[in-house]
Amino acid sequence: MSSKVNPYSVSGKVNYDKLVSEFGVKNITPDVLKEIEILAGEVHPYLRRGIFFAYRDLKKVLNEYKKGNKFFLYTGRAPSGPIHLGHVSVWLFMKWLQEKFDVDIWFQFPDEEKFLFKSDSSWDEIQHWLYENMLDVIALGFDPKKTHFLINTKHAGIMYPEAVKVAKKITFSSIKAAFGFNESNNIGSIFYTAMQTVPVFLPNVLENKKRPCLIPLGIDQDVHFRLSRDVVEKLGYEKPALIHAKFMPPLSGVEGKMSSSESDKAILMTDSPKEVARKINKYAFSGGRDTVEEHRKHGGNIDVDIACQWLKYFEFDDEKLKKIYDNYSSGKLLSGEVKKILIDKINDFLAGHQKRRKEAEKLIDKFIYKN
Amino acid sequence: MSSKVNPYSVSGKVNYDKLVSEFGVKNITPDVLKEIEILAGEVHPYLRRGIFFAYRDLKKVLNEYKKGNKFFLYTGRAPSGPIHLGHVSVWLFMKWLQEKFDVDIWFQFPDEEKFLFKSDSSWDEIQHWLYENMLDVIALGFDPKKTHFLINTKHAGIMYPEAVKVAKKITFSSIKAAFGFNESNNIGSIFYTAMQTVPVFLPNVLENKKRPCLIPLGIDQDVHFRLSRDVVEKLGYEKPALIHAKFMPPLSGVEGKMSSSESDKAILMTDSPKEVARKINKYAFSGGRDTVEEHRKHGGNIDVDIACQWLKYFEFDDEKLKKIYDNYSSGKLLSGEVKKILIDKINDFLAGHQKRRKEAEKLIDKFIYKN
Repeated sequence: MSSKVNPYSVSGKVNYDKLVSEFGVKNITPDVLKEIEILAGEVHPYLRRGIFFAYRDLKKVLNEYKKGNKFFLYTGRAPSGPIHLGHVSVWLFMKWLQEKFDVDIWFQFPDEEKFLFKSDSSWDEIQHWLYENMLDVIALGFDPKKTHFLINTKHAGIMYPEAVKVAKKITFSSIKAAFGFNESNNIGSIFYTAMQTVPVFLPNVLENKKRPCLIPLGIDQDVHFRLSRDVVEKLGYEKPALIHAKFMPPLSGVEGKMSSSESDKAILMTDSPKEVARKINKYAFSGGRDTVEEHRKHGGNIDVDIACQWLKYFEFDDEKLKKIYDNYSSGKLLSGEVKKILIDKINDFLAGHQKRRKEAEKLIDKFIYKN
Repeated sequence: MSSKVNPYSVSGKVNYDKLVSEFGVKNITPDVLKEIEILAGEVHPYLRRGIFFAYRDLKKVLNEYKKGNKFFLYTGRAPSGPIHLGHVSVWLFMKWLQEKFDVDIWFQFPDEEKFLFKSDSSWDEIQHWLYENMLDVIALGFDPKKTHFLINTKHAGIMYPEAVKVAKKITFSSIKAAFGFNESNNIGSIFYTAMQTVPVFLPNVLENKKRPCLIPLGIDQDVHFRLSRDVVEKLGYEKPALIHAKFMPPLSGVEGKMSSSESDKAILMTDSPKEVARKINKYAFSGGRDTVEEHRKHGGNIDVDIACQWLKYFEFDDEKLKKIYDNYSSGKLLSGEVKKILIDKINDFLAGHQKRRKEAEKLIDKFIYKN
């Protein structure tokens, strides 16, 4: 099956080595990890485990940091449905960066994006998800003093004037080439990438600083920022640095990307413990053998077993993870038993999340940027 | 010479009858004038003289007015240079409408338009002209309580969310067809028409009313609102009514449209009395004969004489205007003498304008819409 990776579609078995050379990004090498370890005091498991695996200009950002010039982080979430575990993996990593490097996060909620791109999405529905999504982001535990929500339709007063300057530098033909748009695209969707580029430099404009911008993102989003990097340079700003993540696979198997529109293939942040157990037991693709006997004899296949793969995201103890993998490969652990380990891990994580989510409502005001 | 009439270019001798049928607008007939006279107590000379000559849905607006539902007026000015007499003719008519019908004016300053459409225009330059243009508009004497300036980059907070809803209904192909855009247009210019559509319904959204919108405009701008009319209806709003003006001709002759980029063909609001006299004497195309003798014998041609044509805009007394025309046609008045009459009229008007313009600075705050 051939694979496809762009901001609007991810399908097939992704060949990450091929993406690295196609996109012209760099692999995160041991020397980069060493550098991070020196500065952060540790290396996040997502880095050790190759979940974050590639970058653009990351070394520059670390060099500036050593000179005392902190970067800021930029990420975003286009609301149109519930948050699932695939989304939060990038944000959990950002939270770690925020804590270890003591940096600001600018979190964009482009609440016009899905409205413009999905013909059947309504304004009110998107506003509903905007609110729900903000609760989940807050519940992850970011520092409210150092985390600033930019909501495109609410902050248009400060964003649109900057987006206009960006837009002047981008023709329809370059949008067409980058995103595969055509003439039946609506004019809002065509303009949208200008709004997405703004947070690359807006925090520095607002605060009159010259910090580098670092964007952790799924590699499918790279094309947005390839365009942004060219444009912001034309406007006299530094290109943003990027750090790319692989996709957390859907429950159905290691191909493609998790999506909340297929809710049986994803675990939502609001799923109950029962629901989590049901979905994983029923849908998580197994790397086990056809019979218990065969499994005991030949062992399971970690690489395709979704429970094993997902544990990379939730079992931070390398020793424990190694033991699980060894026991699964050798046949000592059965698929159902690995699933049980995963279910407990996720339910533990979600219990805390859902508790904090209830408190999040009171915190929203602290997170929304005041201009 | 063939003529061309669209928002980005007006050239040649304009055949207004042809435009009426091509655009599908209606001519203002004596019964419409009568209706206006009943409601306003008088008919503005620009209506009597056919300067405002066509409309869309004007009768509907007058009917609503009779039922007690006042309309609001919408006009705009994209700053990129000085205001000239051609601009103010439409606004002087609006001022009359405001006074006679006691209605609000929403005055848009799309300060991103020329920035996006003119490759050599700078942000600061446009912001300079925005300020200068606001002074001229205020100096015309609009009621500050009933006149609301919407500045696209300053009011983007309330305008962009509505523009997004408009934009979702407009494809690139329809923009291409309407304005002759192509793929090398920048994505800001492509989106822009959505921002221009917003004031058609925004005042009602902000004030929770259902007033009809009436837009006095040069007929070259009709295409913008043909598109807008379709879109706002899809969003559940009433189509705006339009009332179309002919172009005030440039000094150089009755073809084309006045433009401040050719400042010798236009009288600017800041021109000194001397400058006004110099421009008119030197550049105003004359309908006179080659020699005084011939002129006395055969008379001058009112239809091509710019001084005669411009007096339609500044000599509001029908008797006096008729006398000037009769005397010019019969050869009693020489071209230089008609020019002298026009120069005095314009200098008189500009003296008052320039005095009020000095006071306008203090009033800007009252005019800018507070949201």
